[in-house]
Amino acid sequence: MAKALFVVMDGLGDRGAETPLSKAKTPNLDKITPNCSLGLLYTLGAGQIPGSDTAHLALFGYNPHKYYRGRGPFEALGAGMELKHGDVAFRANLCTIDDNMVILDRRAGRADYGMDKIYATLDGMKIDDVTVHVLHTVEHRGAIVFSGPGLSASVTNTDPHEANQPVAQAKALDSGAEKMAKVMNEFTKKAYELLKDHPVNKERIEKGLKPANMAVIRGAGVFEKIDSLKDRFGLKAICIAGGALYKGVAKYVGMDVINVPGATGTTKTDLNAKAQAVIKAADDYDLVFAHIKGTDSCGHDGDFEGKMKMIERADAEFFSQVIDKFDVFVLTGDHSTPVAAKRHTCDAAPILFRNETARPDGAKKFTELNCAGGSLGQLTGTELMHFILDYLHKGHMFGE
Amino acid sequence: MAKALFVVMDGLGDRGAETPLSKAKTPNLDKITPNCSLGLLYTLGAGQIPGSDTAHLALFGYNPHKYYRGRGPFEALGAGMELKHGDVAFRANLCTIDDNMVILDRRAGRADYGMDKIYATLDGMKIDDVTVHVLHTVEHRGAIVFSGPGLSASVTNTDPHEANQPVAQAKALDSGAEKMAKVMNEFTKKAYELLKDHPVNKERIEKGLKPANMAVIRGAGVFEKIDSLKDRFGLKAICIAGGALYKGVAKYVGMDVINVPGATGTTKTDLNAKAQAVIKAADDYDLVFAHIKGTDSCGHDGDFEGKMKMIERADAEFFSQVIDKFDVFVLTGDHSTPVAAKRHTCDAAPILFRNETARPDGAKKFTELNCAGGSLGQLTGTELMHFILDYLHKGHMFGE
Repeated sequence: MAKALFVVMDGLGDRGAETPLSKAKTPNLDKITPNCSLGLLYTLGAGQIPGSDTAHLALFGYNPHKYYRGRGPFEALGAGMELKHGDVAFRANLCTIDDNMVILDRRAGRADYGMDKIYATLDGMKIDDVTVHVLHTVEHRGAIVFSGPGLSASVTNTDPHEANQPVAQAKALDSGAEKMAKVMNEFTKKAYELLKDHPVNKERIEKGLKPANMAVIRGAGVFEKIDSLKDRFGLKAICIAGGALYKGVAKYVGMDVINVPGATGTTKTDLNAKAQAVIKAADDYDLVFAHIKGTDSCGHDGDFEGKMKMIERADAEFFSQVIDKFDVFVLTGDHSTPVAAKRHTCDAAPILFRNETARPDGAKKFTELNCAGGSLGQLTGTELMHFILDYLHKGHMFGE
Repeated sequence: MAKALFVVMDGLGDRGAETPLSKAKTPNLDKITPNCSLGLLYTLGAGQIPGSDTAHLALFGYNPHKYYRGRGPFEALGAGMELKHGDVAFRANLCTIDDNMVILDRRAGRADYGMDKIYATLDGMKIDDVTVHVLHTVEHRGAIVFSGPGLSASVTNTDPHEANQPVAQAKALDSGAEKMAKVMNEFTKKAYELLKDHPVNKERIEKGLKPANMAVIRGAGVFEKIDSLKDRFGLKAICIAGGALYKGVAKYVGMDVINVPGATGTTKTDLNAKAQAVIKAADDYDLVFAHIKGTDSCGHDGDFEGKMKMIERADAEFFSQVIDKFDVFVLTGDHSTPVAAKRHTCDAAPILFRNETARPDGAKKFTELNCAGGSLGQLTGTELMHFILDYLHKGHMFGE
C-alpha cells in the first residue's frame, strides 16, 4: 500500500533572488530534487493571503470557503478539548485590568505562573443553560468553549486587541447571535468576580507579577462535525506537529493526532523526535502530515539567517531520516512569510513532489524560482491534496 | 506609503515566435526586466475571450460574472454623463435611413458635422415618466441614458448592426422589460420626427453629406451603484486614459478620472502628457492606472509594424519617465489582439511585475514566451489586482 509523507514548513516561501530556501545548505533535499516535480502553491487561490487556519484546511483538501467557521474550534481541539456539534469556541487571553475594566496588559506580563489554576477556576462555569469549558494552553493563552442550545459565532470579540482599552462588550452581528453575546458579557462579569481577589493573583502580586484578573476572548467559531478524510477519501491520516493550531485543524478533518515530546512548534523543536514519530507512523497510516513551524516564526521576525538555519536543520535532522521511507514525499509551505514583509503574503509557496514515477524536472535545487515553470504548474491547496490522493490510488475519477 | 503604477497596453499580447513585443526596441523596459517577476494573464480565466469592458472590470478586481451589466453604462460614464442607480444606458449611432426606416449608412458617412447639435436635439426627451439623456462622443457615436421607474436592460437593440436593414424594433427578453422595449420604440419614433427635417440635416445635405436622421442604440446596461475600490480595499485610485470606455469602467468602480489634453486613445496619443499626468498623480493616489490603446487598434488592423512602434514609443516616451516613481510597477495587456487574428483572442497576455522585493525571474526581455513559466504563474485579472493590493499592504488575510 502506497504511503505519503506531506511536510509543511510554515511560511516557507520568500521573496528576492536569494531566499532562505535558495541559500540554505540542504544536501539531503538536493540529492532527490532533480528527480522531483516542482510547482507553485497558491494555497487559497492566486492573490489570496492565507491565514494559518484556512491554509491548513485547504492543504487537507477542505475548501475553506465552505468549511471555515472561525479559528476558535481549531484552538480548542488543538489544546485537547472535546467539542460537540454546535459548540462555539474562542481563543482566550488572561490579561491585567484595572478597577474600571481597562486592560493594562493584554498578556498579564506573559508570566504563566498559576495561569493553569486561574483558567481552571473559570472551567465549568454555568450561564443559564450554557456550560463554559476553559483550558490553559501556553503562557497567557487558553481556549474556551461555550456549550448549550441556541449559540452562534456571529459576535464581536471581548478582546479589544490592544491595551489601554476597556474589555469590549460582545455584540451580536445578527439577531440569531443575541443570546451568544449576552452569555459572553455574562462570562466577563463572572470572570471578574472570580478573578479579582483570586488567591493565585495575590501570589502573583507578591512575586512582583501582574495579576491575571480577566479573560478576554476572540476568534469565535462554531464547531461542526464534518466528513473526515477517512469518510471522503478512505484516507487514514495522522498529524505530527508542535503547534496546537495545526493539531486542531487536523482533528477537525478527522486525522489522528499524537503529541511528540520535544515537538514545541518553535525554532528549538526536537526534529529528531519528530522524524522518529513520522517513521513509526508510516506503519499504520496512508498519509503522515508533519508540520514545522520555525520557518514562519523567523519570517515574522524578519530573520533571514534564522529561517535559513531552520531549513538547514530540517534537512540534516528530519529529511535525512524520513524521505526514503515513503512512496510519495511532498514538501511545501502553507504560504509565504517573506523576511522582507514580516507577514503572510500572497506570493506562491514552492512545492517539491517526489515519487519514483513522477515527472523529474531536473532542477539542481529546490528554490522558489526553480519552482516557477515546474511540471506541477500551479496548484491550490485542495488541488495539491487531490494530487497526493491520486498518487495514493485514492482519487476519484469524474465520469467514466 | 507604497504606490503602484498599473499600466495596461490594450491588446498587448500577440502570437508567433516573433511578436511586436519581442521585436520592439525597449531599452527602458529591458533595464528592469531581469529584476521583475513575469507571468501569464488569463484575464477572465483561461479559454475566455475578454471584451474590453469585462477585461477592465476584472483588472480592477471586479469579477465580471458578478458585476457586468452591459456596456452602455461604461460608455455613458466615460462620456461624462451622471448616472443614477437603475438608469439604463446604451451606446448610440447616428445613421442615415430612408423613408421606410431602412438604414442606408450605419454611420451617416462618419462625417460628424453638426452631430453634436443633432444629439442635443434628442437630449431631454420625455417618454411618459421616463427622461432620456443623450450625449455626443466622437464621430457618429454617442451615449444615451433612460431614467425612470421600472426600466430593464433585458432588451434587444434597435441597431440592426448592418446596413440595408430596417431600424430594429426593440423586444423585451423577459416580461419585466416590456416597458423598456416600449420606451425604446417610442424613442425611435420621436427621433424620426425630430430629425427627418432637422436644419442640421438640411445643411449636411447641402454639403454633400448624408443626413444623420436616426439614432440607433445597442449595448443595454443597467447602472448599479457598487462598492468602490475605496470601500472594498481602502484604495485611492486614479485612471489616466484616452478612450472613453476605460474611463467609464474606472468611474464605475469609483476611481477618479482625469482628462489629459492630448491623450486621445489612438496611436497618436500624447504619451509624454500622460507620463506627466501619471507622475503628478503619484502624489495623491495609492494606485495610478494608465491605459494605452494604440497597441489594440494596430492589432485589429493587422499592423505588426504599427503595434511594435507603439510599444517602442511607449518605452521611449512613457516608461522612461514613470517606472522609477513607483514602488510597484505592473505592465500587462487586458487581452491579446494578435495581428494575425485582427481580433481579441483567448491567448494569455504577458505580465511584468516589478517591486524591489519581488522574485526576479532574470529574463533578458519582456516577451510573451519569457512570461511562460514566470514566477507569478498564471493569474486572472482579479487575482492580479489582489496581488497588487497585497504589495500595497492593502490585502486582506482570509482566516488568522
